[in-house]
Amino acid sequence: MPRVSQDHLDARRRQILDGARSCFARHGYEGATVRRLEEATGLSRGAIFHHFRDKESLFLALAEDDVLRMTEVVAEQGLVQVMRDLLAVPPGNGDSPADWLGTRLEVSRRLRTDPEFRARWAERSEQLTVATRNRLLRQREAGNLRDDIDVTVLTAFLELVLEGLVSHMAMGLPAENLGPVLDLVEESVRRHRRGG
Amino acid sequence: MPRVSQDHLDARRRQILDGARSCFARHGYEGATVRRLEEATGLSRGAIFHHFRDKESLFLALAEDDVLRMTEVVAEQGLVQVMRDLLAVPPGNGDSPADWLGTRLEVSRRLRTDPEFRARWAERSEQLTVATRNRLLRQREAGNLRDDIDVTVLTAFLELVLEGLVSHMAMGLPAENLGPVLDLVEESVRRHRRGG
Repeated sequence: MPRVSQDHLDARRRQILDGARSCFARHGYEGATVRRLEEATGLSRGAIFHHFRDKESLFLALAEDDVLRMTEVVAEQGLVQVMRDLLAVPPGNGDSPADWLGTRLEVSRRLRTDPEFRARWAERSEQLTVATRNRLLRQREAGNLRDDIDVTVLTAFLELVLEGLVSHMAMGLPAENLGPVLDLVEESVRRHRRGG
Repeated sequence: MPRVSQDHLDARRRQILDGARSCFARHGYEGATVRRLEEATGLSRGAIFHHFRDKESLFLALAEDDVLRMTEVVAEQGLVQVMRDLLAVPPGNGDSPADWLGTRLEVSRRLRTDPEFRARWAERSEQLTVATRNRLLRQREAGNLRDDIDVTVLTAFLELVLEGLVSHMAMGLPAENLGPVLDLVEESVRRHRRGG
């Protein structure tokens, strides 16, 4: 076996994840066959499964990747910004929320139908809740958050709206009018009501 | 063919709908086989499909039935009350929201995967939007609603939260802590903020 550098391994891993992401988004979990994963990544099944034990592990790595990126956005800009990013799909962007949405929908579907997956996912999902909660706590310290409602309730509220948005877009319903709805959501957790 | 009264026909139709509802909720649309529908309704397939052309029509009749009941609740008490009813599943109640949730989830799933069903459903779904909007307009006239945000936005906001709630419960996530979240949702569309 040839020696390969860590950089090379990391780049290869990234190549697999990027290809697999659009493959899962386009075909769904079941439809993303090994042959399609080979085409999408430009790599052989041997190379793919050298890096990931099986399709399940590859999918979970992708979903974890997304949660990590979401928690980064949440930490800097809050969960409402994650939702705004979802609405504003930039055309022709390979890193677009459309791919992210595909993975997220697949997670939702598997959570509904696969109790074992639900257990494995709970831990990852918790990271986003923690990031959202921490962001809200910092906002409260900065005096930007309303202080008459527990942060746990505000966190659950934002997560519920995100879930609704994902479901809404998954059903192919029009989303271009939801910007003002997200303004209302954001304002509902803030200290002061604008206008009013 | 024996003559039957309209009352008898209506009662029979109701019997089929009630049995089919729990059958769909338990087994999902695909899993609700004709044999299971016979067992659940206590009627033969001949009797069932005398009243409903096919399984698709039976399912749509059920879903319409639910939308009608929801619009009644919305007209009297608003969409947030529909959500509260969802959270408060009374044990052992045959008319329980658990059955309603089952149908609703099946609708969501088929909306995602079946464009033809999506088209047929759009009209029914519109009824709920109209009922919600009309309720909000009446609340605004009564001075109970905030007047700095368009009713269209408030309607979309409430519908988005409902969608999130359905999705949340579908994934089997804990819902017993969501009462205060619904309080926040309700307050966000009202004229005055409590506490604050």
